[in-house]
Amino acid sequence: MAETSITITPRFYETDALGHINNASIAAWLEVSRMSFTGSLLAGTGQDAFSWLVASIHIDFVAETLMGTDVVARISGARAGNTSLTIEHELWQGEQLTVRGTSVLVHVDLQTRSGAPLPQIVRDGLAAAGF
Amino acid sequence: MAETSITITPRFYETDALGHINNASIAAWLEVSRMSFTGSLLAGTGQDAFSWLVASIHIDFVAETLMGTDVVARISGARAGNTSLTIEHELWQGEQLTVRGTSVLVHVDLQTRSGAPLPQIVRDGLAAAGF
Amino acid sequence: MAETSITITPRFYETDALGHINNASIAAWLEVSRMSFTGSLLAGTGQDAFSWLVASIHIDFVAETLMGTDVVARISGARAGNTSLTIEHELWQGEQLTVRGTSVLVHVDLQTRSGAPLPQIVRDGLAAAGF
Amino acid sequence: MAETSITITPRFYETDALGHINNASIAAWLEVSRMSFTGSLLAGTGQDAFSWLVASIHIDFVAETLMGTDVVARISGARAGNTSLTIEHELWQGEQLTVRGTSVLVHVDLQTRSGAPLPQIVRDGLAAAGF
Repeated sequence: MAETSITITPRFYETDALGHINNASIAAWLEVSRMSFTGSLLAGTGQDAFSWLVASIHIDFVAETLMGTDVVARISGARAGNTSLTIEHELWQGEQLTVRGTSVLVHVDLQTRSGAPLPQIVRDGLAAAGF
Repeated sequence: MAETSITITPRFYETDALGHINNASIAAWLEVSRMSFTGSLLAGTGQDAFSWLVASIHIDFVAETLMGTDVVARISGARAGNTSLTIEHELWQGEQLTVRGTSVLVHVDLQTRSGAPLPQIVRDGLAAAGF
Repeated sequence: MAETSITITPRFYETDALGHINNASIAAWLEVSRMSFTGSLLAGTGQDAFSWLVASIHIDFVAETLMGTDVVARISGARAGNTSLTIEHELWQGEQLTVRGTSVLVHVDLQTRSGAPLPQIVRDGLAAAGF
Repeated sequence: MAETSITITPRFYETDALGHINNASIAAWLEVSRMSFTGSLLAGTGQDAFSWLVASIHIDFVAETLMGTDVVARISGARAGNTSLTIEHELWQGEQLTVRGTSVLVHVDLQTRSGAPLPQIVRDGLAAAGF
Protein backbone atom coordinates (compact mmCIF):
# COMPACT_ATOMS: atom_id res chain seq x y z
CA MET A 1 0.00 0.00 0.00
CA ALA A 2 1.31 3.41 -0.89
CA GLU A 3 2.16 5.43 2.21
CA THR A 4 0.79 8.87 1.37
CA SER A 5 0.80 10.53 4.77
CA ILE A 6 3.30 10.66 7.60
CA THR A 7 3.53 12.72 10.76
CA ILE A 8 6.63 14.76 11.51
CA THR A 9 7.24 16.27 14.93
CA PRO A 10 9.22 19.50 14.50
CA ARG A 11 12.59 19.44 16.23
CA PHE A 12 14.14 22.36 18.05
CA TYR A 13 17.36 22.34 16.03
CA GLU A 14 15.21 22.66 12.89
CA THR A 15 14.13 26.13 13.98
CA ASP A 16 16.16 29.24 13.21
CA ALA A 17 16.60 32.62 14.84
CA LEU A 18 13.32 33.82 13.29
CA GLY A 19 11.63 31.35 15.64
CA HIS A 20 10.13 29.12 12.95
CA ILE A 21 11.23 26.00 11.11
CA ASN A 22 14.03 26.89 8.71
CA ASN A 23 13.40 26.49 4.99
CA ALA A 24 16.25 23.98 4.61
CA SER A 25 14.63 21.77 7.25
CA ILE A 26 11.45 21.80 5.15
CA ALA A 27 13.47 20.61 2.15
CA ALA A 28 14.77 17.80 4.35
CA TRP A 29 11.23 16.87 5.45
CA LEU A 30 10.12 16.58 1.83
CA GLU A 31 12.85 13.97 1.41
CA VAL A 32 11.51 12.08 4.42
CA SER A 33 8.00 12.20 2.99
CA ARG A 34 8.88 11.12 -0.54
CA MET A 35 11.20 8.32 0.63
CA SER A 36 8.44 6.94 2.82
CA PHE A 37 6.19 7.06 -0.25
CA THR A 38 8.61 5.53 -2.74
CA GLY A 39 9.73 2.99 -0.16
CA SER A 40 6.13 1.89 0.31
CA LEU A 41 5.71 1.50 -3.46
CA LEU A 42 8.66 -0.90 -3.55
CA ALA A 43 7.96 -2.67 -0.24
CA GLY A 44 8.55 -6.38 -0.36
CA THR A 45 10.22 -6.31 -3.77
CA GLY A 46 13.76 -6.35 -2.54
CA GLN A 47 14.39 -3.42 -4.82
CA ASP A 48 16.60 -0.74 -3.45
CA ALA A 49 14.68 2.08 -1.82
CA PHE A 50 17.54 4.44 -2.62
CA SER A 51 17.53 3.96 -6.38
CA TRP A 52 16.22 7.46 -7.02
CA LEU A 53 18.05 10.68 -7.67
CA VAL A 54 16.38 14.02 -7.13
CA ALA A 55 16.09 15.99 -10.37
CA SER A 56 14.36 19.03 -8.92
CA ILE A 57 12.40 20.33 -5.99
CA HIS A 58 10.05 23.27 -5.74
CA ILE A 59 8.77 24.55 -2.42
CA ASP A 60 6.17 27.22 -1.74
CA PHE A 61 6.27 28.42 1.84
CA VAL A 62 2.57 29.20 2.25
CA ALA A 63 2.73 29.96 5.97
CA GLU A 64 5.33 29.69 8.70
CA THR A 65 5.81 26.22 10.17
CA LEU A 66 6.21 26.36 13.94
CA MET A 67 7.39 24.18 16.82
CA GLY A 68 4.80 22.63 19.10
CA THR A 69 2.36 21.14 16.61
CA ASP A 70 2.89 17.98 14.61
CA VAL A 71 3.11 18.32 10.86
CA VAL A 72 1.21 16.02 8.54
CA ALA A 73 3.21 15.53 5.36
CA ARG A 74 0.87 14.40 2.60
CA ILE A 75 1.59 13.17 -0.89
CA SER A 76 -1.26 14.85 -2.73
CA GLY A 77 -0.40 13.68 -6.22
CA ALA A 78 2.09 11.69 -8.27
CA ARG A 79 2.68 11.27 -11.97
CA ALA A 80 4.81 8.64 -13.63
CA GLY A 81 7.03 9.47 -16.58
CA ASN A 82 9.27 6.99 -18.35
CA THR A 83 12.08 7.11 -15.82
CA SER A 84 10.81 9.99 -13.69
CA LEU A 85 8.30 10.33 -10.90
CA THR A 86 6.76 13.70 -10.06
CA ILE A 87 5.42 13.96 -6.52
CA GLU A 88 3.18 16.69 -5.11
CA HIS A 89 3.59 17.51 -1.43
CA GLU A 90 1.52 19.30 1.16
CA LEU A 91 2.50 20.00 4.77
CA TRP A 92 -0.24 20.78 7.25
CA GLN A 93 -0.20 21.97 10.84
CA GLY A 94 -3.74 21.39 12.05
CA GLU A 95 -6.03 23.23 9.60
CA GLN A 96 -3.18 25.32 8.23
CA LEU A 97 -1.51 24.40 4.97
CA THR A 98 2.05 25.62 5.54
CA VAL A 99 3.95 24.21 2.57
CA ARG A 100 3.17 23.07 -0.95
CA GLY A 101 5.93 21.36 -2.88
CA THR A 102 6.88 19.30 -5.88
CA SER A 103 9.70 16.78 -6.16
CA VAL A 104 10.85 15.26 -9.42
CA LEU A 105 12.74 12.01 -8.95
CA VAL A 106 14.56 9.96 -11.55
CA HIS A 107 14.62 6.22 -11.13
CA VAL A 108 18.23 5.18 -11.67
CA ASP A 109 20.45 2.20 -12.02
CA LEU A 110 22.68 2.82 -9.01
CA GLN A 111 25.75 1.43 -10.80
CA THR A 112 25.56 3.70 -13.81
CA ARG A 113 23.56 6.53 -12.20
CA SER A 114 21.60 6.73 -15.45
CA GLY A 115 17.84 6.64 -15.77
CA ALA A 116 16.04 3.30 -15.60
CA PRO A 117 12.36 2.76 -16.48
CA LEU A 118 9.96 2.95 -13.55
CA PRO A 119 9.25 -0.58 -12.30
CA GLN A 120 5.75 -1.80 -13.06
CA ILE A 121 5.10 -2.23 -9.35
CA VAL A 122 5.59 1.50 -8.93
CA ARG A 123 3.06 2.22 -11.68
CA ASP A 124 0.64 -0.25 -10.11
CA GLY A 125 1.11 1.31 -6.69
CA LEU A 126 0.42 4.78 -8.05
CA ALA A 127 -2.76 3.56 -9.71
CA ALA A 128 -3.86 1.80 -6.52
CA ALA A 129 -3.31 5.03 -4.60
CA GLY A 130 -5.59 6.80 -7.05
CA PHE A 131 -2.83 8.83 -8.68
CA MET B 1 28.94 46.32 -3.42
CA ALA B 2 26.67 43.41 -4.09
CA GLU B 3 28.33 40.13 -3.16
CA THR B 4 27.36 37.87 -6.06
CA SER B 5 29.77 34.99 -5.60
CA ILE B 6 30.91 33.00 -2.60
CA THR B 7 32.91 29.82 -2.22
CA ILE B 8 31.53 26.90 -0.22
CA THR B 9 33.71 23.98 0.80
CA PRO B 10 31.56 20.84 0.92
CA ARG B 11 31.44 19.26 4.38
CA PHE B 12 31.44 15.54 5.05
CA TYR B 13 28.22 15.57 7.09
CA GLU B 14 26.52 17.21 4.08
CA THR B 15 27.03 14.03 2.07
CA ASP B 16 24.59 11.13 2.19
CA ALA B 17 24.85 7.39 1.66
CA LEU B 18 24.78 7.87 -2.12
CA GLY B 19 28.20 9.47 -1.71
CA HIS B 20 27.25 12.94 -2.93
CA ILE B 21 26.03 16.14 -1.30
CA ASN B 22 22.45 15.63 -0.15
CA ASN B 23 19.73 17.73 -1.76
CA ALA B 24 18.73 19.29 1.57
CA SER B 25 22.29 20.53 2.04
CA ILE B 26 22.03 22.23 -1.33
CA ALA B 27 18.87 24.00 -0.15
CA ALA B 28 20.86 25.13 2.88
CA TRP B 29 23.70 26.42 0.67
CA LEU B 30 21.27 28.53 -1.36
CA GLU B 31 20.32 30.23 1.90
CA VAL B 32 23.99 30.92 2.60
CA SER B 33 24.40 32.37 -0.89
CA ARG B 34 21.32 34.58 -0.89
CA MET B 35 21.94 35.87 2.66
CA SER B 36 25.47 36.87 1.66
CA PHE B 37 23.92 38.66 -1.31
CA THR B 38 21.08 40.41 0.53
CA GLY B 39 23.40 41.21 3.43
CA SER B 40 25.80 42.90 1.03
CA LEU B 41 22.96 44.97 -0.44
CA LEU B 42 22.11 46.30 3.03
CA ALA B 43 25.69 46.59 4.30
CA GLY B 44 26.30 49.71 6.35
CA THR B 45 22.64 50.67 6.55
CA GLY B 46 22.01 49.26 9.98
CA GLN B 47 19.00 47.51 8.46
CA ASP B 48 18.36 44.03 9.65
CA ALA B 49 19.90 41.41 7.39
CA PHE B 50 17.24 38.95 8.54
CA SER B 51 14.21 40.96 7.43
CA TRP B 52 13.38 38.55 4.64
CA LEU B 53 11.11 35.54 4.57
CA VAL B 54 11.47 32.87 1.93
CA ALA B 55 8.37 32.63 -0.24
CA SER B 56 9.59 29.85 -2.50
CA ILE B 57 12.63 27.99 -3.70
CA HIS B 58 13.16 25.97 -6.83
CA ILE B 59 16.23 23.80 -7.31
CA ASP B 60 17.31 21.88 -10.41
CA PHE B 61 19.96 19.30 -9.63
CA VAL B 62 21.84 19.42 -12.92
CA ALA B 63 24.68 17.14 -11.85
CA GLU B 64 25.81 15.53 -8.63
CA THR B 65 27.74 17.77 -6.25
CA LEU B 66 30.67 15.96 -4.70
CA MET B 67 33.11 16.30 -1.80
CA GLY B 68 36.66 17.34 -2.56
CA THR B 69 36.14 20.36 -4.80
CA ASP B 70 35.06 23.80 -3.69
CA VAL B 71 31.70 25.04 -4.91
CA VAL B 72 31.28 28.52 -6.32
CA ALA B 73 27.79 29.77 -5.51
CA ARG B 74 26.88 32.55 -7.93
CA ILE B 75 23.93 34.89 -7.99
CA SER B 76 23.30 34.98 -11.72
CA GLY B 77 20.28 37.25 -11.69
CA ALA B 78 17.91 39.18 -9.45
CA ARG B 79 14.62 40.97 -10.03
CA ALA B 80 12.94 43.38 -7.67
CA GLY B 81 9.19 43.32 -7.18
CA ASN B 82 7.30 45.63 -4.86
CA THR B 83 8.05 43.69 -1.68
CA SER B 84 9.68 40.64 -3.25
CA LEU B 85 13.12 39.83 -4.55
CA THR B 86 13.65 36.97 -6.99
CA ILE B 87 17.19 35.59 -7.02
CA GLU B 88 18.71 33.23 -9.59
CA HIS B 89 21.39 30.84 -8.34
CA GLU B 90 24.07 28.74 -9.95
CA LEU B 91 26.45 26.33 -8.22
CA TRP B 92 29.62 25.34 -10.01
CA GLN B 93 32.30 22.77 -9.28
CA GLY B 94 35.15 23.68 -11.59
CA GLU B 95 33.69 23.75 -15.11
CA GLN B 96 30.63 21.76 -14.08
CA LEU B 97 27.35 23.53 -13.39
CA THR B 98 25.80 21.27 -10.72
CA VAL B 99 22.79 23.26 -9.53
CA ARG B 100 20.51 25.93 -10.89
CA GLY B 101 18.04 27.50 -8.51
CA THR B 102 15.61 30.31 -7.85
CA SER B 103 14.70 31.86 -4.50
CA VAL B 104 11.83 34.25 -4.01
CA LEU B 105 12.18 36.36 -0.88
CA VAL B 106 9.70 38.75 0.64
CA HIS B 107 11.02 41.79 2.43
CA VAL B 108 9.14 41.97 5.70
CA ASP B 109 8.59 44.11 8.70
CA LEU B 110 9.89 41.71 11.34
CA GLN B 111 7.31 42.86 13.90
CA THR B 112 4.24 42.20 11.77
CA ARG B 113 5.81 39.61 9.43
CA SER B 114 3.96 41.33 6.60
CA GLY B 115 5.50 42.53 3.36
CA ALA B 116 7.37 45.83 3.34
CA PRO B 117 8.52 47.65 0.17
CA LEU B 118 12.07 46.88 -0.91
CA PRO B 119 14.41 49.58 0.42
CA GLN B 120 15.75 51.92 -2.27
CA ILE B 121 19.28 50.87 -1.35
CA VAL B 122 18.41 47.34 -2.40
CA ARG B 123 17.12 48.57 -5.76
CA ASP B 124 20.24 50.67 -6.20
CA GLY B 125 22.46 47.74 -5.32
CA LEU B 126 20.73 45.51 -7.83
CA ALA B 127 21.20 48.12 -10.54
CA ALA B 128 24.85 48.57 -9.63
CA ALA B 129 25.33 44.82 -9.89
CA GLY B 130 23.89 44.92 -13.39
CA PHE B 131 20.65 43.14 -12.49
CA MET C 1 4.75 11.59 33.52
CA ALA C 2 8.36 11.76 32.49
CA GLU C 3 8.80 10.70 28.88
CA THR C 4 11.91 8.55 29.02
CA SER C 5 11.77 6.79 25.68
CA ILE C 6 11.03 7.93 22.15
CA THR C 7 11.39 6.30 18.77
CA ILE C 8 13.37 7.98 16.00
CA THR C 9 13.20 6.78 12.42
CA PRO C 10 16.56 7.45 10.75
CA ARG C 11 16.30 9.79 7.77
CA PHE C 12 18.28 9.44 4.58
CA TYR C 13 19.79 12.93 4.73
CA GLU C 14 21.13 12.03 8.18
CA THR C 15 23.42 9.44 6.61
CA ASP C 16 26.84 10.33 5.24
CA ALA C 17 29.10 8.90 2.56
CA LEU C 18 30.27 6.15 4.93
CA GLY C 19 26.72 4.79 4.66
CA HIS C 20 25.77 5.24 8.32
CA ILE C 21 24.13 7.95 10.37
CA ASN C 22 26.53 10.86 10.71
CA ASN C 23 27.81 11.74 14.17
CA ALA C 24 26.34 15.25 14.00
CA SER C 25 22.90 13.76 13.37
CA ILE C 26 23.33 11.73 16.55
CA ALA C 27 24.06 14.94 18.45
CA ALA C 28 20.84 16.33 17.01
CA TRP C 29 18.88 13.25 18.09
CA LEU C 30 20.10 13.62 21.67
CA GLU C 31 18.53 17.09 21.61
CA VAL C 32 15.25 15.58 20.43
CA SER C 33 15.39 13.00 23.20
CA ARG C 34 16.27 15.35 26.03
CA MET C 35 13.72 17.99 24.95
CA SER C 36 11.00 15.37 24.92
CA PHE C 37 12.11 14.44 28.43
CA THR C 38 12.39 17.95 29.85
CA GLY C 39 9.20 18.96 28.09
CA SER C 40 7.37 16.09 29.76
CA LEU C 41 8.69 17.15 33.16
CA LEU C 42 7.22 20.61 32.68
CA ALA C 43 4.02 19.53 30.90
CA GLY C 44 0.95 21.45 32.00
CA THR C 45 2.91 24.02 33.96
CA GLY C 46 2.95 26.69 31.32
CA GLN C 47 6.69 26.92 31.90
CA ASP C 48 8.78 27.40 28.85
CA ALA C 49 10.10 24.15 27.47
CA PHE C 50 13.03 26.07 25.98
CA SER C 51 14.37 27.50 29.23
CA TRP C 52 17.44 25.28 29.15
CA LEU C 53 20.88 25.89 27.72
CA VAL C 54 23.21 23.03 26.92
CA ALA C 55 26.36 23.18 29.03
CA SER C 56 28.00 20.07 27.62
CA ILE C 57 27.40 16.90 25.69
CA HIS C 58 29.40 13.71 25.59
CA ILE C 59 28.72 10.99 23.04
CA ASP C 60 30.27 7.53 22.80
CA PHE C 61 29.65 5.94 19.42
CA VAL C 62 29.46 2.32 20.53
CA ALA C 63 28.42 0.90 17.18
CA GLU C 64 27.38 2.32 13.82
CA THR C 65 23.78 3.52 13.58
CA LEU C 66 22.20 2.53 10.28
CA MET C 67 19.19 3.36 8.11
CA GLY C 68 16.31 0.91 7.99
CA THR C 69 15.73 0.20 11.67
CA ASP C 70 14.01 2.49 14.14
CA VAL C 71 16.10 3.85 16.97
CA VAL C 72 14.85 3.82 20.54
CA ALA C 73 16.27 6.82 22.37
CA ARG C 74 16.15 6.16 26.10
CA ILE C 75 16.85 8.44 29.03
CA SER C 76 18.63 5.98 31.29
CA GLY C 77 19.40 8.34 34.13
CA ALA C 78 19.09 11.92 35.32
CA ARG C 79 20.58 13.87 38.21
CA ALA C 80 19.44 17.23 39.45
CA GLY C 81 21.95 19.84 40.55
CA ASN C 82 21.04 23.29 41.81
CA THR C 83 20.48 24.82 38.40
CA SER C 84 21.75 21.95 36.25
CA LEU C 85 20.28 18.69 35.02
CA THR C 86 22.52 15.85 33.92
CA ILE C 87 20.86 13.39 31.56
CA GLU C 88 22.15 9.96 30.55
CA HIS C 89 21.22 8.75 27.05
CA GLU C 90 21.18 5.42 25.28
CA LEU C 91 20.29 4.77 21.65
CA TRP C 92 19.31 1.26 20.65
CA GLN C 93 18.68 -0.37 17.29
CA GLY C 94 16.98 -3.64 18.15
CA GLU C 95 19.28 -5.43 20.59
CA GLN C 96 22.25 -3.28 19.66
CA LEU C 97 23.27 -0.37 21.85
CA THR C 98 24.72 2.06 19.33
CA VAL C 99 25.22 5.24 21.33
CA ARG C 100 25.75 6.19 24.96
CA GLY C 101 25.65 9.87 25.83
CA THR C 102 25.45 12.47 28.54
CA SER C 103 23.92 15.92 28.31
CA VAL C 104 24.33 18.58 30.95
CA LEU C 105 21.65 21.26 30.80
CA VAL C 106 21.42 24.47 32.77
CA HIS C 107 18.00 25.75 33.68
CA VAL C 108 18.01 29.44 32.79
CA ASP C 109 16.02 32.56 33.06
CA LEU C 110 15.56 33.25 29.35
CA GLN C 111 15.76 37.03 29.84
CA THR C 112 19.08 37.07 31.61
CA ARG C 113 20.42 33.75 30.28
CA SER C 114 21.75 33.07 33.75
CA GLY C 115 21.13 29.95 35.80
CA ALA C 116 17.83 29.57 37.64
CA PRO C 117 17.10 26.89 40.27
CA LEU C 118 15.45 23.76 38.92
CA PRO C 119 11.67 24.00 39.43
CA GLN C 120 10.32 21.69 42.13
CA ILE C 121 8.10 20.01 39.53
CA VAL C 122 11.24 18.92 37.69
CA ARG C 123 12.67 17.41 40.88
CA ASP C 124 9.34 15.69 41.57
CA GLY C 125 9.21 14.34 38.01
CA LEU C 126 12.71 12.95 38.28
CA ALA C 127 11.83 11.21 41.52
CA ALA C 128 8.62 9.81 40.03
CA ALA C 129 10.63 8.44 37.11
CA GLY C 130 12.90 6.65 39.56
CA PHE C 131 15.91 8.87 38.93
CA MET D 1 51.77 20.80 7.03
CA ALA D 2 49.13 20.12 9.63
CA GLU D 3 46.17 22.45 9.23
CA THR D 4 45.38 23.43 12.81
CA SER D 5 43.11 26.41 12.30
CA ILE D 6 40.21 27.12 9.98
CA THR D 7 37.63 29.87 9.82
CA ILE D 8 33.93 29.06 9.83
CA THR D 9 31.32 31.67 8.98
CA PRO D 10 28.14 30.90 10.95
CA ARG D 11 25.14 30.21 8.73
CA PHE D 12 21.62 31.36 9.45
CA TYR D 13 20.11 27.88 9.28
CA GLU D 14 22.60 26.83 11.97
CA THR D 15 20.88 29.12 14.47
CA ASP D 16 17.86 28.03 16.48
CA ALA D 17 14.93 29.80 18.08
CA LEU D 18 17.09 30.85 21.03
CA GLY D 19 18.91 33.09 18.54
CA HIS D 20 22.30 31.41 18.78
CA ILE D 21 24.08 28.61 16.96
CA ASN D 22 22.45 25.31 17.85
CA ASN D 23 24.54 22.74 19.72
CA ALA D 24 24.15 20.17 16.95
CA SER D 25 25.65 22.64 14.47
CA ILE D 26 28.65 22.94 16.77
CA ALA D 27 29.05 19.15 16.67
CA ALA D 28 29.00 19.42 12.89
CA TRP D 29 31.65 22.15 12.92
CA LEU D 30 33.97 19.98 15.00
CA GLU D 31 33.75 17.42 12.20
CA VAL D 32 34.72 20.11 9.68
CA SER D 33 37.65 21.14 11.83
CA ARG D 34 39.00 17.65 12.53
CA MET D 35 38.60 16.51 8.90
CA SER D 36 40.57 19.52 7.73
CA PHE D 37 43.24 18.54 10.26
CA THR D 38 43.36 14.82 9.49
CA GLY D 39 43.13 15.53 5.78
CA SER D 40 46.17 17.81 6.04
CA LEU D 41 48.11 15.08 7.86
CA LEU D 42 47.49 12.69 4.98
CA ALA D 43 47.81 15.23 2.15
CA GLY D 44 49.68 13.93 -0.84
CA THR D 45 49.73 10.33 0.37
CA GLY D 46 46.77 9.14 -1.63
CA GLN D 47 45.43 7.69 1.59
CA ASP D 48 41.73 8.05 2.09
CA ALA D 49 40.80 11.09 4.11
CA PHE D 50 37.65 9.31 5.26
CA SER D 51 39.34 6.32 6.88
CA TRP D 52 38.42 7.45 10.37
CA LEU D 53 35.43 6.60 12.51
CA VAL D 54 34.40 8.79 15.40
CA ALA D 55 34.64 6.94 18.70
CA SER D 56 33.50 9.78 20.92
CA ILE D 57 33.01 13.51 21.11
CA HIS D 58 32.82 15.76 24.11
CA ILE D 59 31.74 19.39 23.82
CA ASP D 60 31.71 22.08 26.49
CA PHE D 61 29.60 25.06 25.50
CA VAL D 62 31.58 27.75 27.26
CA ALA D 63 29.63 30.68 25.85
CA GLU D 64 26.95 31.16 23.24
CA THR D 65 28.13 31.19 19.64
CA LEU D 66 26.38 33.87 17.61
CA MET D 67 25.78 34.87 14.00
CA GLY D 68 27.67 37.79 12.58
CA THR D 69 31.23 37.01 13.66
CA ASP D 70 33.51 34.43 12.08
CA VAL D 71 34.54 31.50 14.22
CA VAL D 72 38.12 30.33 14.38
CA ALA D 73 38.19 26.59 14.92
CA ARG D 74 41.55 25.61 16.38
CA ILE D 75 43.07 22.22 16.99
CA SER D 76 44.76 22.91 20.31
CA GLY D 77 46.14 19.46 20.90
CA ALA D 78 46.35 15.94 19.55
CA ARG D 79 47.57 12.64 20.95
CA ALA D 80 48.26 9.48 18.99
CA GLY D 81 47.28 6.09 20.35
CA ASN D 82 47.85 2.82 18.55
CA THR D 83 44.83 3.09 16.26
CA SER D 84 43.23 6.15 17.83
CA LEU D 85 43.76 9.89 17.56
CA THR D 86 42.51 12.23 20.27
CA ILE D 87 41.98 15.80 19.11
CA GLU D 88 41.41 18.86 21.30
CA HIS D 89 39.26 21.62 19.85
CA GLU D 90 38.67 25.27 20.63
CA LEU D 91 36.23 27.61 18.92
CA TRP D 92 36.78 31.32 19.25
CA GLN D 93 34.70 34.33 18.27
CA GLY D 94 37.10 37.23 18.51
CA GLU D 95 38.52 37.16 22.05
CA GLN D 96 35.77 34.88 23.31
CA LEU D 97 36.34 31.17 23.68
CA THR D 98 32.89 29.77 23.00
CA VAL D 99 33.49 26.02 22.75
CA ARG D 100 36.04 23.53 24.02
CA GLY D 101 35.82 20.00 22.68
CA THR D 102 37.50 16.64 22.33
CA SER D 103 37.12 14.17 19.49
CA VAL D 104 38.44 10.63 19.61
CA LEU D 105 38.87 9.10 16.17
CA VAL D 106 39.78 5.55 15.28
CA HIS D 107 41.83 4.96 12.18
CA VAL D 108 40.10 2.15 10.32
CA ASP D 109 40.45 -0.14 7.41
CA LEU D 110 37.38 0.97 5.47
CA GLN D 111 36.70 -2.56 4.19
CA THR D 112 36.57 -4.24 7.58
CA ARG D 113 35.71 -1.15 9.64
CA SER D 114 38.18 -2.39 12.22
CA GLY D 115 41.01 -0.41 13.73
CA ALA D 116 44.23 0.01 11.76
CA PRO D 117 47.48 1.41 13.18
CA LEU D 118 47.98 5.13 12.68
CA PRO D 119 50.13 5.71 9.59
CA GLN D 120 53.64 6.94 10.36
CA ILE D 121 52.97 10.05 8.32
CA VAL D 122 50.23 10.95 10.78
CA ARG D 123 52.62 10.53 13.71
CA ASP D 124 55.22 12.60 11.90
CA GLY D 125 52.68 15.32 11.13
CA LEU D 126 51.60 15.48 14.76
CA ALA D 127 55.20 15.84 15.86
CA ALA D 128 55.84 18.53 13.26
CA ALA D 129 52.81 20.41 14.52
CA GLY D 130 54.27 20.32 18.02
CA PHE D 131 51.71 17.87 19.39
